[in-house]
Amino acid sequence: MSPDPLQSTLERLRALGVGRLGPDFLLTWEKSDSEIAATALAARALAELHRRGSSLRVFDSGLAVAIFRDKSTRTRFSFCSAADALGLEVADLDEEKSQISHGETVRETANMVSFLTEVIGIRDDMYLGEGNSGMREVAAAVQEGFEAGVIHQRPALVNLQCDVDHPTQTMADLLQLEAHFGSLQALRGKRLAMTWAYSPSYGKPLSVPQGVIGLMTRFGMDVVLAHPEGYALLPEVVEVARANAVASGGRFTVAASMEEAFRDADVVYPKSWAPFQVMQRRTELLRARDRAGLETLERECLATNARFRLWECGEAQMRLTRDGRALYMHCLPADISGVSCERGEVAASVFERYRLATYREASYKPFVIAAMILLARLEDPIATLERLVREPRPRVGPGV
Amino acid sequence: MSPDPLQSTLERLRALGVGRLGPDFLLTWEKSDSEIAATALAARALAELHRRGSSLRVFDSGLAVAIFRDKSTRTRFSFCSAADALGLEVADLDEEKSQISHGETVRETANMVSFLTEVIGIRDDMYLGEGNSGMREVAAAVQEGFEAGVIHQRPALVNLQCDVDHPTQTMADLLQLEAHFGSLQALRGKRLAMTWAYSPSYGKPLSVPQGVIGLMTRFGMDVVLAHPEGYALLPEVVEVARANAVASGGRFTVAASMEEAFRDADVVYPKSWAPFQVMQRRTELLRARDRAGLETLERECLATNARFRLWECGEAQMRLTRDGRALYMHCLPADISGVSCERGEVAASVFERYRLATYREASYKPFVIAAMILLARLEDPIATLERLVREPRPRVGPGV
Amino acid sequence: MSPDPLQSTLERLRALGVGRLGPDFLLTWEKSDSEIAATALAARALAELHRRGSSLRVFDSGLAVAIFRDKSTRTRFSFCSAADALGLEVADLDEEKSQISHGETVRETANMVSFLTEVIGIRDDMYLGEGNSGMREVAAAVQEGFEAGVIHQRPALVNLQCDVDHPTQTMADLLQLEAHFGSLQALRGKRLAMTWAYSPSYGKPLSVPQGVIGLMTRFGMDVVLAHPEGYALLPEVVEVARANAVASGGRFTVAASMEEAFRDADVVYPKSWAPFQVMQRRTELLRARDRAGLETLERECLATNARFRLWECGEAQMRLTRDGRALYMHCLPADISGVSCERGEVAASVFERYRLATYREASYKPFVIAAMILLARLEDPIATLERLVREPRPRVGPGV
Repeated sequence: MSPDPLQSTLERLRALGVGRLGPDFLLTWEKSDSEIAATALAARALAELHRRGSSLRVFDSGLAVAIFRDKSTRTRFSFCSAADALGLEVADLDEEKSQISHGETVRETANMVSFLTEVIGIRDDMYLGEGNSGMREVAAAVQEGFEAGVIHQRPALVNLQCDVDHPTQTMADLLQLEAHFGSLQALRGKRLAMTWAYSPSYGKPLSVPQGVIGLMTRFGMDVVLAHPEGYALLPEVVEVARANAVASGGRFTVAASMEEAFRDADVVYPKSWAPFQVMQRRTELLRARDRAGLETLERECLATNARFRLWECGEAQMRLTRDGRALYMHCLPADISGVSCERGEVAASVFERYRLATYREASYKPFVIAAMILLARLEDPIATLERLVREPRPRVGPGV
Repeated sequence: MSPDPLQSTLERLRALGVGRLGPDFLLTWEKSDSEIAATALAARALAELHRRGSSLRVFDSGLAVAIFRDKSTRTRFSFCSAADALGLEVADLDEEKSQISHGETVRETANMVSFLTEVIGIRDDMYLGEGNSGMREVAAAVQEGFEAGVIHQRPALVNLQCDVDHPTQTMADLLQLEAHFGSLQALRGKRLAMTWAYSPSYGKPLSVPQGVIGLMTRFGMDVVLAHPEGYALLPEVVEVARANAVASGGRFTVAASMEEAFRDADVVYPKSWAPFQVMQRRTELLRARDRAGLETLERECLATNARFRLWECGEAQMRLTRDGRALYMHCLPADISGVSCERGEVAASVFERYRLATYREASYKPFVIAAMILLARLEDPIATLERLVREPRPRVGPGV
Repeated sequence: MSPDPLQSTLERLRALGVGRLGPDFLLTWEKSDSEIAATALAARALAELHRRGSSLRVFDSGLAVAIFRDKSTRTRFSFCSAADALGLEVADLDEEKSQISHGETVRETANMVSFLTEVIGIRDDMYLGEGNSGMREVAAAVQEGFEAGVIHQRPALVNLQCDVDHPTQTMADLLQLEAHFGSLQALRGKRLAMTWAYSPSYGKPLSVPQGVIGLMTRFGMDVVLAHPEGYALLPEVVEVARANAVASGGRFTVAASMEEAFRDADVVYPKSWAPFQVMQRRTELLRARDRAGLETLERECLATNARFRLWECGEAQMRLTRDGRALYMHCLPADISGVSCERGEVAASVFERYRLATYREASYKPFVIAAMILLARLEDPIATLERLVREPRPRVGPGV
């Protein structure tokens, strides 16, 4: 008789010896290997419980405050789904309907929305140097309010994408890799190509490629980063990836072309992003409300960008990968040549072959977010998960 | 001792021999007579349970995604109320804050918002030929995701008004008729006048009159449709009404004036709508972003419209109905002469006499939507309803 | 052994002999002294239950409709938090996405959103003479619908700020005073200075100062109102304050300067507001859409306003108060000199000393709103509170 996969997930989770995590999940590289593994295992357990039709409810009530400074469909719905499944109510902090801004008011607003709040999810990826640091301002503010007894509970903070990292996405990516290769251990030695790809738009955030190289280098993978000249990532994150690779016995290298990176790759993650130097100039121009400067920058960038139209993940590129069958990954939405744009990050035939796989990759995100909340907010999260499994309650039916 | 009406509602429901309905409620004429009757009975049972202060909760958690492509108060709140009463959390898919559109992205977005979703409600009535077909795209997309195991449950789709039908409204109308005449059987032979009426605006959707003639002809009613020349409904829906009348032993006729239609009517439903030919031209102009064309069309339409200012449901018209006391119906908001506009669909004195009746008509809608969700999503919906009645839990009080 | 403060709160509540309150909380001076005391005690009990990690849930489901006609962060989140803690779902009535307006439609819309609604919270403070009266229109409409059986339950109305009063704010202020001085009895004889203060903006509502003098004069306090010439409050509210002071054995006086009011004050509440005559002119200009008139009015007001830049709560002013240590109060956000504006209502050093105290003042608001809902909607609210305390259920953990 093969063991129940949910039981063995819980046993591995218990074996990690991890208790309650710190209140905030802001960068994966601030969490220990055991904490990352615990988050992945808890997410997998929650997903499996949900698949079986069981309740994930651990809160009787409480708010999940969502602060989105950029458009979002999947992260917004993932956060909403996770909060609701745990028993929390999403309350959007619409900055136009209030008047939050950096400085004094962050401290005040953070407290004002937190009196009955269990988690605050923030997407703030527009300005380099501001997103992640803004989240830390919010964290410090609610910590002060909690310590002063103004707030009865310390809300957890979840980074829903910032200028530096996108941990809910990359943890979902990690679950996808684990499912694909059978275990996190099986990732050792696998080659992952995180490559830039062409898109007609030029200003996409750096958080996904940075988050991917910052996380996947921790599992002994052979991570190769490729991008055109001038499209470098934040140097300090590249340094994190290098150090991770050394510590995990993996590899981290930089290649000069998509083709070089794809050669013998087990996994490919071709995606457009903006050069961080451009993002820095853009941040300054936005702050200065320099409209003419922004237009000049955009013209320059589009011209530069257009020189790299050949960075497309097509059939020829895929044939270079291991047995021509690397796993294609994307955080979605992808710019698909001939579908969502004339020419983009990926050929239509390649994307279509992996389309449902990318949906599955995205499907882990609600459970990753739920795991992050549960691990941060429950007194004894592992015991709580064990009880959800041992005494399952149906999610649908009279008397739920 | 007279029997408990809730018990007898449940007994009639059980006697229909209907189990779980198909996942989507898109057009009433895609549902069998038993399924329509089951939906009406379930709605009535839920309304009565609510009136008695009992809980309707059958979901522990889960999202109810609302997609509104047009303004809405009552349908929005009805969907929200229904979802909440059943235990679901409404999540609005704001198409401006995301970037949904027809084509590839519908397929993707539908899956992205559905990982923990039990129902998707859509209002999409702006473009002829697009609303209902767009709903089918969404249904196919979540079906694919469900079959691939990407989504753990198949969300139900509820049509909250499209270019063809408005089933949550017409089912509420049906409950109003049932309450007024005592039973669905008592509708047999009753004359219902579905007539066009003048409104200073000219572009109202066709879904209500189409839905009314498509549904009420199934109960042996004598349905008469009246409108000025050029204000025809979709020919295929008129055909549905004709066939229904034949099958049910009722009648379906077309009259040339409100007065002719009202004569001896038991029920009148005077309401403005746009000619479908106009809606078609408007759809093309909107697609072509032809602003000048739209303005010309509007001028023409308003001029045509103005010729039919006498199509008002006034006291003289009401006197033509059976004993001068036909039931006045409207989906609200009505254009009331001298109240919400100078001259409109109905005289103020007529509307005021039936005002609370129209509120009651609207009050069924949340329970109709709740019934549609329950019948689509519960494994054994009748048994679930029976248990909600047999073991009622209070909706208010400590320990709920 | 000292008694459990929660037990003694409940005993005092029981001793008041107050049952279910009327359905609407629109002005504090429409409530009896016992009802005000009951609301304060119930709010304190709910806050203490929440602090202990217990559930406040008394509704299985139901909507809490929020109607905000002005920007809001803290009141919006307070309403949302209160509703969620009690088990209700907030549904925003966005007047742009619907088409509510004064007149016929208020009556209709109020019913349309109330079929499964337990409470309606309204902020409507833009137009003098309209906010509070508009709330009464809504109350009458749902009362009519309830009596006609169209709505199964009579939704409670909570005034979330109008042109006359801001009862959820001033009740939170009262809890702050009670905590500061040890009891409501201890407020007797304490001097509270409600004073105008300079702000670079000129059009702030009158509801807070009016609400403060209308409520605090009921506890035997020595309330002194100070403002520059021409910044008078609504005469009828000033009359209420005068009568309250006589009835409670307190005092109500008007001073000509902040300094005079602050002398020996135990509590200071320095805050900007607009003269009601200006608000009246502004209301007329807004109705007439007289843009030029509004600009002229604004210029005049800003010029007048600028003459009173010295009305700032600085260190010198604070030194005049009792032992130089009066409690500083503010409804937030305050205009802080050198922080949120060049020169404003309060010096930065004063505000920083009381910053966490103002957060605590705000922290009572969700529990005040929850108490108002509970006292209006529960059959036997005191027994319900007693049971929440006697049989506490944890708010967090599996099986909640």
